[in-house]
Amino acid sequence: MTKHAKARVFDLARRETDEPSSLVVRFGVEQPLRLMSGAVLAPWQCAYQTYGTLNAARSNAILICHALTGDQHVANVHPATGKPGWWQTMVGPGKAFDTDRYFVICANVLGGCMGTTGPSSTNPATGKPWALDLPVVTIRDMVNAQAKLIDHLGIDTLFAVAGGSMGGMQVLEWAASYPDRVFSALPIASAARHSAQNIAFGEVGRQAVMADPEWHGGRYIEAGTRPEKGLAVARMGGHITYLSEAALHNKFGRRLQNRTTPGFSFDADFQVESYLRHQGLSFVERFDANSYLYVTRAMDYFDLAADHGGILAQAFRGTRTRFCVVSFNSDWLFPTSESRQIVKALNAAAASVSFVEIETDKGHDAFLLDVPEFEATLRGFLDAAAKARGLPVAA
Amino acid sequence: MTKHAKARVFDLARRETDEPSSLVVRFGVEQPLRLMSGAVLAPWQCAYQTYGTLNAARSNAILICHALTGDQHVANVHPATGKPGWWQTMVGPGKAFDTDRYFVICANVLGGCMGTTGPSSTNPATGKPWALDLPVVTIRDMVNAQAKLIDHLGIDTLFAVAGGSMGGMQVLEWAASYPDRVFSALPIASAARHSAQNIAFGEVGRQAVMADPEWHGGRYIEAGTRPEKGLAVARMGGHITYLSEAALHNKFGRRLQNRTTPGFSFDADFQVESYLRHQGLSFVERFDANSYLYVTRAMDYFDLAADHGGILAQAFRGTRTRFCVVSFNSDWLFPTSESRQIVKALNAAAASVSFVEIETDKGHDAFLLDVPEFEATLRGFLDAAAKARGLPVAA
Repeated sequence: MTKHAKARVFDLARRETDEPSSLVVRFGVEQPLRLMSGAVLAPWQCAYQTYGTLNAARSNAILICHALTGDQHVANVHPATGKPGWWQTMVGPGKAFDTDRYFVICANVLGGCMGTTGPSSTNPATGKPWALDLPVVTIRDMVNAQAKLIDHLGIDTLFAVAGGSMGGMQVLEWAASYPDRVFSALPIASAARHSAQNIAFGEVGRQAVMADPEWHGGRYIEAGTRPEKGLAVARMGGHITYLSEAALHNKFGRRLQNRTTPGFSFDADFQVESYLRHQGLSFVERFDANSYLYVTRAMDYFDLAADHGGILAQAFRGTRTRFCVVSFNSDWLFPTSESRQIVKALNAAAASVSFVEIETDKGHDAFLLDVPEFEATLRGFLDAAAKARGLPVAA
Repeated sequence: MTKHAKARVFDLARRETDEPSSLVVRFGVEQPLRLMSGAVLAPWQCAYQTYGTLNAARSNAILICHALTGDQHVANVHPATGKPGWWQTMVGPGKAFDTDRYFVICANVLGGCMGTTGPSSTNPATGKPWALDLPVVTIRDMVNAQAKLIDHLGIDTLFAVAGGSMGGMQVLEWAASYPDRVFSALPIASAARHSAQNIAFGEVGRQAVMADPEWHGGRYIEAGTRPEKGLAVARMGGHITYLSEAALHNKFGRRLQNRTTPGFSFDADFQVESYLRHQGLSFVERFDANSYLYVTRAMDYFDLAADHGGILAQAFRGTRTRFCVVSFNSDWLFPTSESRQIVKALNAAAASVSFVEIETDKGHDAFLLDVPEFEATLRGFLDAAAKARGLPVAA
């Protein structure tokens, strides 16, 4: 069932591409990627980052799966924004994902815009950007692409696969599709299927992008423009769902921007408006609008139970993977009830599972933030798993 | 403190305007409306509907205040859509707001687009549509405009003022600004101030409208166009917040549209997408984009405590109005906690107050739907209030 890796020499010093900011593997026409839709991608490529050192036994590799608008730059300065990596609080020497002990890999997802094949990549058949001619991709397609990268890196079994939100969906898919290759799995603030409400939010974001005349039916690169306004609106709407009502209230409340009395205008009079506009504007500088369509769509189509005869437990039948499921009590986008469904299915499949609901008012975004109890949870689970895996204890 | 009405002859048979679908009162330059921003509207006008008969004592009038995208067509076929009035379940002969007993009035809000002065009205100074030159209006401005209509109708004290959502904000403002003119008040699924999260959702909707190039800086009427795509996106986003997650799940779940297997496309593959697109498209046929900006903005600026020294109870000090506060347990846009704040302030002001949280999975929209316990709550409260007011008992 499991596709085992062909061991290859993996040399971090040898950059396999001219892509300046990431490692990239190019898969030629002889290494096609078959998608769930039936379409086939060949050639295609996968961009990724690594941190730490792969041990001789190749047993200390952790794959981190990024969320909707994340990318492979987990723990290094982002080449486009100059900001720290998106999980720098968790990944690095001495951190929960301790790069002194583990070899950490993160790949840009299929459909993304940071080097892995996506709608802004060149369609080999036309020499032009794929745009909406790229077949729709799914979470399973993303995971299958990552598995080919892991093959390429000569890694048979991952010590851990971890990720939050859409990253958690990939973790679950990894555990279901490649059970023998995942020693431990950490789906965080995630769900085994995208809810109707989340599909609805995704659709509003997509419609905002597509309503922008600068979108040009997806062919904005050739038109020399970008649907920045539509993408900014999509991001603003999305961003509200990443925060709890309490977080927004504590952070901004009804405080006014640079004034003490209402301006009675449509300017960003409230601080929360100014914050959202900033989120929208800064997002469009680093993200591709068509990728936003593809990646949100991949989440919509995710329904792990449906892929296993309608019974979620069936996705994990016979698994020997150790699971650590984490949710946040103020997360209303991927609420604890979704994590409980995963735990229930894992229990039904007699899997080894820890479940922690972290108390915080930070909402869905908590998985990206410095939440000590969360960090301690990850660290504790990974330490125990490392011991079970026979990895050396922490220095 | 209270502005008492000058009794006038009110004759339903005499339509005061050429507006075909509603009654309209035109207030001339000698009857200016002074706004909270300091701006003055003169002339201006107010469109309204009435149902039932005003009794000789003029003591049986109920003012219903409509929500964001509602209008004065509470209980008659809507002239633009041909659909039943938005509260036809509650208003009519024998219904909770029994038009055999009560004289029901509903006015289009200031800033609206159904006959009351709003951004699509003509600016008398230019002869062109106001567009964004119309001063920003507030909930208090809406209520002051309604008070002038009630004066015009020769009504001193309203038997009841009732409304849900933004309508509830107007109810609270009526009770605070005109305590002697409100015998009973029914703020439903509402809040004494717009939360940071709700301001955020409003801002996304406005940005969606303004991002549409057909908006033309608000001057789309003169440009002979309409920002339909932007307004549809705004409506889609808003609509999600009106429903609970459970309602969306029960109504649509992850069911596909006209197919049994995923289409792997950006078409409305899921039923919930098709539903939202329909909501967006049908909304733009009946609503003005600039009105959407003004009316959402009015909600943002609503903060009744801030208008009374920061203490909400102060808004109701000495009130003799009987209050019935209603919330719905699955409403996350105007959650029960907001209604509890109102109740707490009313208790602190030693007001007469009933509070009911209705159990339903229908979310914020429940106030518009057929929810028997809700209907019974309104009916019971109004019956008791009618007895206290000395109105005849129900036939």
